[in-house]
Amino acid sequence: MVVVVEQNASEKDIEGIIKTLQDFGFDVHRSTGVNQTVLGAIGVKPDFDTRQVEVLPGVARVYRITEPYKLASRTFKQEKTVIKFKNGLEIGGKAIVVMAGPCSVENENQIFTIAKHVAESGAKILRGGAFKPRTSPYAFQGLGEEGLKLMRRAADEFGLLVVTEAMDSTQIGLMEQYADIIQIGARNMQNYNFLKELGKSKKPVMLKRGLSATFEEWLMSAEYILSSGNKQVLLCERGIRTFETATRNTMDISAIPVIHSKSHLPIVADPSHGIGIRDKVIPMARAAVAAGADAIIVEVHHDPDRAKSDGAQSLFPEQFTEMMKQISVIAEAIGRTIA
Amino acid sequence: MVVVVEQNASEKDIEGIIKTLQDFGFDVHRSTGVNQTVLGAIGVKPDFDTRQVEVLPGVARVYRITEPYKLASRTFKQEKTVIKFKNGLEIGGKAIVVMAGPCSVENENQIFTIAKHVAESGAKILRGGAFKPRTSPYAFQGLGEEGLKLMRRAADEFGLLVVTEAMDSTQIGLMEQYADIIQIGARNMQNYNFLKELGKSKKPVMLKRGLSATFEEWLMSAEYILSSGNKQVLLCERGIRTFETATRNTMDISAIPVIHSKSHLPIVADPSHGIGIRDKVIPMARAAVAAGADAIIVEVHHDPDRAKSDGAQSLFPEQFTEMMKQISVIAEAIGRTIA
Amino acid sequence: MVVVVEQNASEKDIEGIIKTLQDFGFDVHRSTGVNQTVLGAIGVKPDFDTRQVEVLPGVARVYRITEPYKLASRTFKQEKTVIKFKNGLEIGGKAIVVMAGPCSVENENQIFTIAKHVAESGAKILRGGAFKPRTSPYAFQGLGEEGLKLMRRAADEFGLLVVTEAMDSTQIGLMEQYADIIQIGARNMQNYNFLKELGKSKKPVMLKRGLSATFEEWLMSAEYILSSGNKQVLLCERGIRTFETATRNTMDISAIPVIHSKSHLPIVADPSHGIGIRDKVIPMARAAVAAGADAIIVEVHHDPDRAKSDGAQSLFPEQFTEMMKQISVIAEAIGRTIA
Amino acid sequence: MVVVVEQNASEKDIEGIIKTLQDFGFDVHRSTGVNQTVLGAIGVKPDFDTRQVEVLPGVARVYRITEPYKLASRTFKQEKTVIKFKNGLEIGGKAIVVMAGPCSVENENQIFTIAKHVAESGAKILRGGAFKPRTSPYAFQGLGEEGLKLMRRAADEFGLLVVTEAMDSTQIGLMEQYADIIQIGARNMQNYNFLKELGKSKKPVMLKRGLSATFEEWLMSAEYILSSGNKQVLLCERGIRTFETATRNTMDISAIPVIHSKSHLPIVADPSHGIGIRDKVIPMARAAVAAGADAIIVEVHHDPDRAKSDGAQSLFPEQFTEMMKQISVIAEAIGRTIA
Repeated sequence: MVVVVEQNASEKDIEGIIKTLQDFGFDVHRSTGVNQTVLGAIGVKPDFDTRQVEVLPGVARVYRITEPYKLASRTFKQEKTVIKFKNGLEIGGKAIVVMAGPCSVENENQIFTIAKHVAESGAKILRGGAFKPRTSPYAFQGLGEEGLKLMRRAADEFGLLVVTEAMDSTQIGLMEQYADIIQIGARNMQNYNFLKELGKSKKPVMLKRGLSATFEEWLMSAEYILSSGNKQVLLCERGIRTFETATRNTMDISAIPVIHSKSHLPIVADPSHGIGIRDKVIPMARAAVAAGADAIIVEVHHDPDRAKSDGAQSLFPEQFTEMMKQISVIAEAIGRTIA
Repeated sequence: MVVVVEQNASEKDIEGIIKTLQDFGFDVHRSTGVNQTVLGAIGVKPDFDTRQVEVLPGVARVYRITEPYKLASRTFKQEKTVIKFKNGLEIGGKAIVVMAGPCSVENENQIFTIAKHVAESGAKILRGGAFKPRTSPYAFQGLGEEGLKLMRRAADEFGLLVVTEAMDSTQIGLMEQYADIIQIGARNMQNYNFLKELGKSKKPVMLKRGLSATFEEWLMSAEYILSSGNKQVLLCERGIRTFETATRNTMDISAIPVIHSKSHLPIVADPSHGIGIRDKVIPMARAAVAAGADAIIVEVHHDPDRAKSDGAQSLFPEQFTEMMKQISVIAEAIGRTIA
Repeated sequence: MVVVVEQNASEKDIEGIIKTLQDFGFDVHRSTGVNQTVLGAIGVKPDFDTRQVEVLPGVARVYRITEPYKLASRTFKQEKTVIKFKNGLEIGGKAIVVMAGPCSVENENQIFTIAKHVAESGAKILRGGAFKPRTSPYAFQGLGEEGLKLMRRAADEFGLLVVTEAMDSTQIGLMEQYADIIQIGARNMQNYNFLKELGKSKKPVMLKRGLSATFEEWLMSAEYILSSGNKQVLLCERGIRTFETATRNTMDISAIPVIHSKSHLPIVADPSHGIGIRDKVIPMARAAVAAGADAIIVEVHHDPDRAKSDGAQSLFPEQFTEMMKQISVIAEAIGRTIA
Repeated sequence: MVVVVEQNASEKDIEGIIKTLQDFGFDVHRSTGVNQTVLGAIGVKPDFDTRQVEVLPGVARVYRITEPYKLASRTFKQEKTVIKFKNGLEIGGKAIVVMAGPCSVENENQIFTIAKHVAESGAKILRGGAFKPRTSPYAFQGLGEEGLKLMRRAADEFGLLVVTEAMDSTQIGLMEQYADIIQIGARNMQNYNFLKELGKSKKPVMLKRGLSATFEEWLMSAEYILSSGNKQVLLCERGIRTFETATRNTMDISAIPVIHSKSHLPIVADPSHGIGIRDKVIPMARAAVAAGADAIIVEVHHDPDRAKSDGAQSLFPEQFTEMMKQISVIAEAIGRTIA
């Protein structure tokens, strides 16, 4: 922590600040310039609230100098994390993985039809919601365990893995039974008790970025899972909230290179939620691959006009096939492949 | 729902749109102008995703014409909700209620010292956290049930009620045992399963606004609690996330008159989290009262430099006393009182 | 400037950073801890782009330790600036000044009718636009010089001063002829050549906060005017852009105490643009006064349904009279008066 | 415009609304449902402020049904605008154009060195600032006309065109003398008098998106130029302001497909300002090309550590060459070329 002292602070103020810092357990280095004194407070205290020092008399500004997360950072672990599955699939390596499927599992015919199509076009993981966090209490809330069963069967039938959302700790057990990756939604990104429980699971966790979460807060949430024991965390950019209302969210493509430099964890891009409008999902998927995403997750529906949720952002099957072709060429252009 | 048809849409397109709307169960009224056709789709479908219609050929724009929430709205219930407690205290009436106390319960001496002071200065409800949602997994996470017990005893000793945060459904039972109002934090505002469980509680729930929640989303979350059976909901404005970083959050004072016109639920203002800097809490508290808040919740600590959390935004006891004086005069100026 | 060195930086890297800082003209103080080295770079360089240092090998983080503005800051000038007018009126003192009038000057009858009413109710300054920055090129753009003449005459008739907006440098001459305060709109807050020209004027300048301007950027824009020679600058909070769309803007009441602590310049609050909805202007005006605003600027129209611009946020004359009563009591409650 | 009437509005209210709409010059179509009445108000009034109707008794909501811009819209002009230059270069066609150069022109050696390099690597247009809008009045403000002369000579020497920023109307004449494209900065996007003057120029105008401008506002600003007579407008996405501070701005890649669907104007992407960090410019440039940008503008400097502005986001020459290679392959992958 660096403490900048006010220009007109008295020597007594400065000594008071140093004393307080020492009481908090820091080693203090003083650097006295002609007009300005700066104090370096050394000591590992990731949870220290710097505002505690800001309010002291004579303090002008305070800066934390270490990142508040450790296990999630590149400084701590330089080689990239690769999530490995039993069937040999890897996320975080050279090959880009595609996850696809409907927003919600609706019935057997629907999930089998879509699973078959996306598998044939090159997807490796089936997405689909059985428990749906909906803004309205009156909206379709998902099929529950029945949906998980249908999804598992459809995935197994076509050689896919399963990613699906858990809404709270009570659903982790079910996820471990039916899913290969547990997805945590944007609204739950800072549900800390839940994150701690996920840290005890053996399954990889895909943590979506909160609607207004900074990169640092997102990595802090990953840190909750990592520090509770689960090292298999994927981060998923799905659009942030801005002043713009013409798109559902503003997909932050820059999250891809930024997270790659700050963290060793793989990053997934979700253009369906990121932009929310079907005919713009493909350009955004191309952009995400071009920017370096390790995986793409997209919504596909064979009859989107009748989908129970998010039909308007779901690709038609033939659009998905077209997207796969386009991103394959781009992957190759940047020295990667599609898994 | 109003569907605006594209200027160059064919008659066939228009008939297709009408057909689809009817299939969705709407009654359709067609209004054909010289350049533009507009369709009115009538029918109560609060969960309908209007993007389903936006993607149809020939559709220019779609507008939902009814608010997606019902029980929380002024249209549904015109008289303001007043939350009544056994000791006679009311929130939502003419008198403005003050809730005060430390960010976290730390020990017996701390909570009793603060409770005594705030009670003597006119607070009616003791605030304090026993379970703390912290950004960092390495930060102090609260005393848990022990904290609740201490808070209950301190409150009873000085004639106060208790408001404290529950972080998930598993804590609701404890809250019912020790608290008078269950607080839901900003990060949990859209934790829907939790909201449904709170709907089954007999205790009033104070729902904080999410960091980037619109008024509509906030009221939709209240709707989850109301529609699950609990009519005692208070809304709490605690600052939103904007581009400004000089303050912790941007406290949205306009939420007070806006919520009053959209909803019958009482609104509480939290200037401590709203601005996050001690010496600006009092002006913001004054502003909130002047704008019409039904209650104020503030952090007070007798030794804020040593507080385990949020010391930098906690008022010193003498500042709290001063704040009470100032807001009393303002309350009177606008025809209200301090409870 | 404080430069935090990476934990694993080599001694050669550190020496390279020191060398570069010295080449930039800084005095460098080195503070070597066990795990971390911190460099203090001392020297007054308000225009230095700290990213120049961030990109050097071995640099972890860089913090600027002095505010980039000087003339606008409280550190530079501790006593509050009071703007004094020939008729004895002062802005920035104990008395709160009210500016009122229509959004646009429309015709003689309109401006005289409104001027008379607001003067009788206690306003001291007449507001009104003769040059209107409109989002649409097809919207009413103001009466131009004719509007200025009408406004001047109406103001003189009823003992008021005039505040009105200049849209570019070519209009400064006209303003000096007809106005007492030159208003700069939010969209021009960073039109730097214009600000420099305003710095040469003898008239006070009211600088509105840009739609997404931080406090620092706003004060930097004031610095352009101050450093060009004009010390009479007022800052005006008029709402910022956030994700919320239910209100026209989000009025940032916290700007009032924050600017008061960072700067000596008077601060004006504009609840009409801040919230944009007539029936919520009064509560927001009350909040602004309660938070410590030095002046209030509001839109009033005797026939708002027929106003050429912003009718929906203009108060009816009788509402304005009511607002004056309410804010008078609040001003008194906090030890101030209405001028 | 569609006017939704309140559910409990009286027949008298409804008649009052209809009367007012007719007075405003609209044709009114009434659609009466069981619970709800909807009025369609037909008539071309692009400048109509819908809040004028929102405030009428009995009105629940009002929606504008036509876009407020016309000349900029795809509805008005379906074929894409292609900007053609005398040397045969085109922007808006199949070939993607690259603009490159330093942030500021600093001296002859600098601009010639950089111009030579970028021309050899495939850039077609030289960028560089002679007039610099700087947040601080104490920062380097550009070489002025001398800078324009140097840039013109360097561009001519290496077969490049010139794009450079004009800060106000007084500089348009100089631009017409030395530049091929006049750039309008983000801070001037709503400087309407300036836009009108640009509408009278014969030179193409590149209009950067304001820091917090919606797509609609951006297109409205383009409409100012188009409606004043200049049809050669390019739009440039350069990052928007969000809550995230780890990047300079948040580059909104979705602007590319969204603008393509709303407007016929070519869209340029500026990854240097968009992300503001050198080592992430290339992935963002790749993403922009993959998403369909018509041109890319990037900052390049042969000695960025000594650049007078924006050195931290300028590519080294060899990085620029590498970027050109990467985006060429991506352009090809999506059926385009680099001009």
